Amino acid sequence: MSGAYRDAGVDTEAAAKAVALIADLASATRTPEVADQVGGFAGLYRIDEHRLLAAATDGVGTKLEIARLTGRLDTVGIDLVAMCADDVACTGAEPLFFLDYLAVGRIDPTRVASLVEGVVDGCRRAGCALLGGETAEHPGVMAEDAFDLAGFCVGVVEEASLLGPHRVSEGDVVIGLASTGLHANGYSLVRSALLPAFDLEITPPGLDRTLAEELLEPCAIYAPDVVALARDGLLHAAAHVTGGGIVENLPRALPQGLGATIRRGRWPEHPIFGLVREISGASEDDLFATFNMGIGMLLIVEPTSADDVLARSSHRAFTIGEVTPGSAVRAV
Amino acid sequence: MSGAYRDAGVDTEAAAKAVALIADLASATRTPEVADQVGGFAGLYRIDEHRLLAAATDGVGTKLEIARLTGRLDTVGIDLVAMCADDVACTGAEPLFFLDYLAVGRIDPTRVASLVEGVVDGCRRAGCALLGGETAEHPGVMAEDAFDLAGFCVGVVEEASLLGPHRVSEGDVVIGLASTGLHANGYSLVRSALLPAFDLEITPPGLDRTLAEELLEPCAIYAPDVVALARDGLLHAAAHVTGGGIVENLPRALPQGLGATIRRGRWPEHPIFGLVREISGASEDDLFATFNMGIGMLLIVEPTSADDVLARSSHRAFTIGEVTPGSAVRAV
Repeated sequence: MSGAYRDAGVDTEAAAKAVALIADLASATRTPEVADQVGGFAGLYRIDEHRLLAAATDGVGTKLEIARLTGRLDTVGIDLVAMCADDVACTGAEPLFFLDYLAVGRIDPTRVASLVEGVVDGCRRAGCALLGGETAEHPGVMAEDAFDLAGFCVGVVEEASLLGPHRVSEGDVVIGLASTGLHANGYSLVRSALLPAFDLEITPPGLDRTLAEELLEPCAIYAPDVVALARDGLLHAAAHVTGGGIVENLPRALPQGLGATIRRGRWPEHPIFGLVREISGASEDDLFATFNMGIGMLLIVEPTSADDVLARSSHRAFTIGEVTPGSAVRAV
Repeated sequence: MSGAYRDAGVDTEAAAKAVALIADLASATRTPEVADQVGGFAGLYRIDEHRLLAAATDGVGTKLEIARLTGRLDTVGIDLVAMCADDVACTGAEPLFFLDYLAVGRIDPTRVASLVEGVVDGCRRAGCALLGGETAEHPGVMAEDAFDLAGFCVGVVEEASLLGPHRVSEGDVVIGLASTGLHANGYSLVRSALLPAFDLEITPPGLDRTLAEELLEPCAIYAPDVVALARDGLLHAAAHVTGGGIVENLPRALPQGLGATIRRGRWPEHPIFGLVREISGASEDDLFATFNMGIGMLLIVEPTSADDVLARSSHRAFTIGEVTPGSAVRAV
């Protein structure tokens, strides 16, 4: 558990305990069509003899607060789609459709439309249809200008193309795809460290744009790349760097008994991480446990496929580590 | 637009404007597999030659505030599943799986587990699997004990069994299935009218239990009935009474050029509606526009099927009206 993150009010131990309780409860609703989760990024449901649906839900978290503070509402919908569609893509599934849930204190049609514009933009980038949504007004419960966004994405994958730990072997190569910045993780820490130090509209040292612009930079959406590479048999597994860092997420794509070594310094560091390091005083391990540190998607590939994957990725891609015996995942 | 409801802070005109803007934006993401919405309760997506997926998202709204105020958290998850699964069932689709999104100020594993217990209970009642979920902690943005719940349900339907306006004819019978009370609609009005007048833990005149118990009574879940009746060819269309009253929702199941006459008094009135009528001073039309008034699901059937449907329903069922020429839907 990250000490810096607990200071920012996020309790990852309580979250882990809640997740365990939920998993136990949910098992009571299991039907024969529910497939074992492979990797845990999305739920899998058998739709016919050879295909599975993959479904994931997520929110944008407190990055929304930056949008609210600045009034720039038209990009956090991209983050919302990214968080869900890239979880779905980690199974190899192609995102088919998306639904959004927007809770607001008061419905202002212009503000709602701005938020949904971002969702539409995200759906285009992920290649899925916006199939529906709900805008819920909570007068007296939420402040008039408060809002929260949740998203749901469903994809489909041929069982033979399913990515996951079952395909991973010792010696496989870990390729990292560049993030665009913070994505949607660690914002409680960022807000508690950076907002007291800098106005959102000034350009902090080391950055080339305002803090607001930097903090609102939308997540990369990796799904089209991941799906295309998976379909061509070039991937064994994929891990979305979300809700924690590389070391927290990579094990979700590894089988029992295998770990990985990630070599820091194999990719360029985005300046925002330097600024957070400096202002928050967080340790390097805390930073790596909380933030993506420049890598938003991890692909695990056969060594002979690595060059192909590096060449075909539309995101900057780096060979950053390898799968190792034993269960330890370390960033060295 | 309900005058009483605007007083309670809910702006249905703004909501309608937002919905129109969203529909326009969403059309840009349309893919060939997206089917025309029939009735508008759920999005439809073609998964193979003969089957469609139906997907819907919804929240519980400010009914959650009653759960928060009383600390009784283990039933609003049933409402959440009901709101989504019964929208899906209006297409004739069998709910397959459900995902929940829970946003909290602070993760308290016991409280989270209580909320999810309700979701699990709802999934059992709807016959679907809880395939996944997200618990998001928003420290500093939401109060520690604040929470919001959103849900997402996917079902599947044979194209030949699809319910909707395309099947409805003049002279069809409207059957209403009894609600268990307020369900999850009109709570902003209920809260503004009843909470200043009564303590949640006392039994108001005309009720046989405390106001808290009455206001937390979970929604009925109609999906298993609707799906079974649809599969046996007994239904033409179905309309979930949600986000408004009977007159607001029935048109979603009717084709252009047809309306309906609903005869008030054909079903027993639940005492909670009498209490709301008395305390809020809302007009009968406002009440019918805001609340389900005792009917939570509307089934449109061939006159010759009506007796079968009435006999087979596991909810109390009443013949409450008929489909008429012209587009007016009236409660007389």
